[in-house]
Amino acid sequence: MTEHELIQELKSTNSSKIIMLVADGLGGLPLDPGGKTELETAVTPNLDRLAGIGTSGSSIPVLPGITPGSGPGHLGLFGYDPLEFKIGRGALEATGIGFELGPHDVAARGNFCTLDTNGLISDRRAGRIPSEESFHVVEKLQAVAIDGYEVFVKPVKEHRFVVVFRGTGLDGRVADTDPQATGVPPLDPQPLDPAAAETADIAKEFVRQACEILKDEPKANGLTLRGFAAKPALPTYEELYGLRAAAIAVYPMYKGLASLVGMKLVGTPQTLGEQIDELKACWNDYDFFFLHFKYTDSTGEDGNFANKVKQIEELDKIIPRIEELKPDVLIVTGDHSTPSKLKSHSWHPVPTLLVADPCRPDGATAFGERNCLSGGLGQFPAKHLMLLAMAHAGRFGKYGA
Amino acid sequence: MTEHELIQELKSTNSSKIIMLVADGLGGLPLDPGGKTELETAVTPNLDRLAGIGTSGSSIPVLPGITPGSGPGHLGLFGYDPLEFKIGRGALEATGIGFELGPHDVAARGNFCTLDTNGLISDRRAGRIPSEESFHVVEKLQAVAIDGYEVFVKPVKEHRFVVVFRGTGLDGRVADTDPQATGVPPLDPQPLDPAAAETADIAKEFVRQACEILKDEPKANGLTLRGFAAKPALPTYEELYGLRAAAIAVYPMYKGLASLVGMKLVGTPQTLGEQIDELKACWNDYDFFFLHFKYTDSTGEDGNFANKVKQIEELDKIIPRIEELKPDVLIVTGDHSTPSKLKSHSWHPVPTLLVADPCRPDGATAFGERNCLSGGLGQFPAKHLMLLAMAHAGRFGKYGA
Repeated sequence: MTEHELIQELKSTNSSKIIMLVADGLGGLPLDPGGKTELETAVTPNLDRLAGIGTSGSSIPVLPGITPGSGPGHLGLFGYDPLEFKIGRGALEATGIGFELGPHDVAARGNFCTLDTNGLISDRRAGRIPSEESFHVVEKLQAVAIDGYEVFVKPVKEHRFVVVFRGTGLDGRVADTDPQATGVPPLDPQPLDPAAAETADIAKEFVRQACEILKDEPKANGLTLRGFAAKPALPTYEELYGLRAAAIAVYPMYKGLASLVGMKLVGTPQTLGEQIDELKACWNDYDFFFLHFKYTDSTGEDGNFANKVKQIEELDKIIPRIEELKPDVLIVTGDHSTPSKLKSHSWHPVPTLLVADPCRPDGATAFGERNCLSGGLGQFPAKHLMLLAMAHAGRFGKYGA
Repeated sequence: MTEHELIQELKSTNSSKIIMLVADGLGGLPLDPGGKTELETAVTPNLDRLAGIGTSGSSIPVLPGITPGSGPGHLGLFGYDPLEFKIGRGALEATGIGFELGPHDVAARGNFCTLDTNGLISDRRAGRIPSEESFHVVEKLQAVAIDGYEVFVKPVKEHRFVVVFRGTGLDGRVADTDPQATGVPPLDPQPLDPAAAETADIAKEFVRQACEILKDEPKANGLTLRGFAAKPALPTYEELYGLRAAAIAVYPMYKGLASLVGMKLVGTPQTLGEQIDELKACWNDYDFFFLHFKYTDSTGEDGNFANKVKQIEELDKIIPRIEELKPDVLIVTGDHSTPSKLKSHSWHPVPTLLVADPCRPDGATAFGERNCLSGGLGQFPAKHLMLLAMAHAGRFGKYGA
């Protein structure tokens, strides 16, 4: 019996409310031997108080030693084994900008680039042209037409865009065209499997027409495509858990991921405070609420220890507003660690906190990496967090007589 | 996606160096209630200091409660699931004496025994005849000839030898012939599967000819065979991890195991000091170094608590010489526990220590079973240790976007 079959068998419905607050890249490292991590350094009276009444632990996103991207990191938290369920970059990007992928679509992430007079890449990101300029270029690409297929080109940000091909027989197994170098031409789209030959041809034709249209652009006169992917087959939160789920996120990537598992994207908040406003506004309409907080990750990626500490403290300050709603289960965790010391995602376990009435207290008095080591959740695979959420919400029946 | 497929996808190469120091049977038990284990009793200033800067934990060799032999114990540490990959005793013994097993070989471990005038075993180990005497007897057995097959007979130590049959259609599923008792004759080689019928016949013919040749030997006038096995299909360290791996071990068993996963056997050291000399001598030629220390296991098997403590202290003293090399990742662990109290291998988790720059400190101040319980590695399957080694060495890319 798989874990998802078990969930199907045991799930039940009640009026409980579950909040999962994901502080992206929450886990960290001390900068110096004997020092504290960002979370241990931050002054977090609210999270510490919750650690005292809840149960804490350390989640392992994929496997020990494996550093996840945002996709696998969130899939794990949502209860989908990230080694079993995979989301291609293109599919994630498309969904992230609100493009609803259909079953006959293949999406790819595009980058505008600058080509020299010989057709060689001189800038892989077209000088990171501003979004306004990029949007204008994307607009021109609407003229691309490929017989028998629909083509959608959508801007993302700066030099980035998404292209979606729609039609029967498409297949995402097409190689990236970004040569990851300058002084060489973009690669041709090549099928990685015979079944994707037609898709590669369509992509090639798209590139041909696009380059013709863009040939007089000063910067964005070329493009590369990568992460070709169809929509992954994921059971929705409603199907899997019987939960009406809302996602309250600022950034496209996380909205996209949430909507791939069937969460409804609520509002267009731009700040954590606005996210809480949205949470309160939709409180009666959903059972599960995914709140995503980006800045613990971005400050970590920047290698800015002090700023990551500050972001954690900002997060802590918002906790009382969440508590006012009296959720039955409140989870605070991350999708992976992003230690400022490493300036990147890492494999280190993620501090995790679960607060609910039937929590077994574990003696923790603060929320931090070291405290979590002796927490009641132990070290556990992230994909099991939703089992704990469902259990603490009283949404699971007994297994077996 | 399997763990080995994941490793294949994520592995990358750099100039990092990884040392895995395996103190065989490291884990122990207190002799009396309220007492300390051997490792906790030993004075280990160097290991304790490393515990302070590294991350510690407890590795579970196979599954909770499962006591491994040396084969599964080491396979786990090397990252091969010991329930999936199995090595027959014969294959391990053969490789351990430097015999390079081929794909058409079946190897068995042999014991000379003493038969009385009725052909019944009077001594299962032929009075543990000295190696020189045994080597002479093995020499005589070179005369055995079986039509259509090659037969190799090689001495091991005292009454022990290895026989390898080579030819097409051989199958290792043949039962042991040692009846594990005296006063009875050796068993006939019996196939455990119809496919091994021919192999059993060949083994029978080998025993017949050998007993004829040995009939006038005073002690070694008979033999038993056990652990029939073909070479296991294991990906090498180079294939799996992209690591050029060296094994620096004293005993044949561990050399054999290491060479089955493609490690190169370096030197013929006889002491821990000589092992470190070899380590230094080959430091530039390899990426990964497996050092095996036997005496923590043999003293445990002897039930000699004080001597096991002493061996651990000897190991501790050598640590600074290893540190001089500045390995990027230094791991100290065991393949299983061998508590003196039990005088045997056991299932208890194995204290494990990993030291590397991106380690997350866990507050440990000493290396011991109890300290490891709150260590940052938690309790983890031994097969995941190499994932952690690769991650801390910066040899893994990110999984997913």
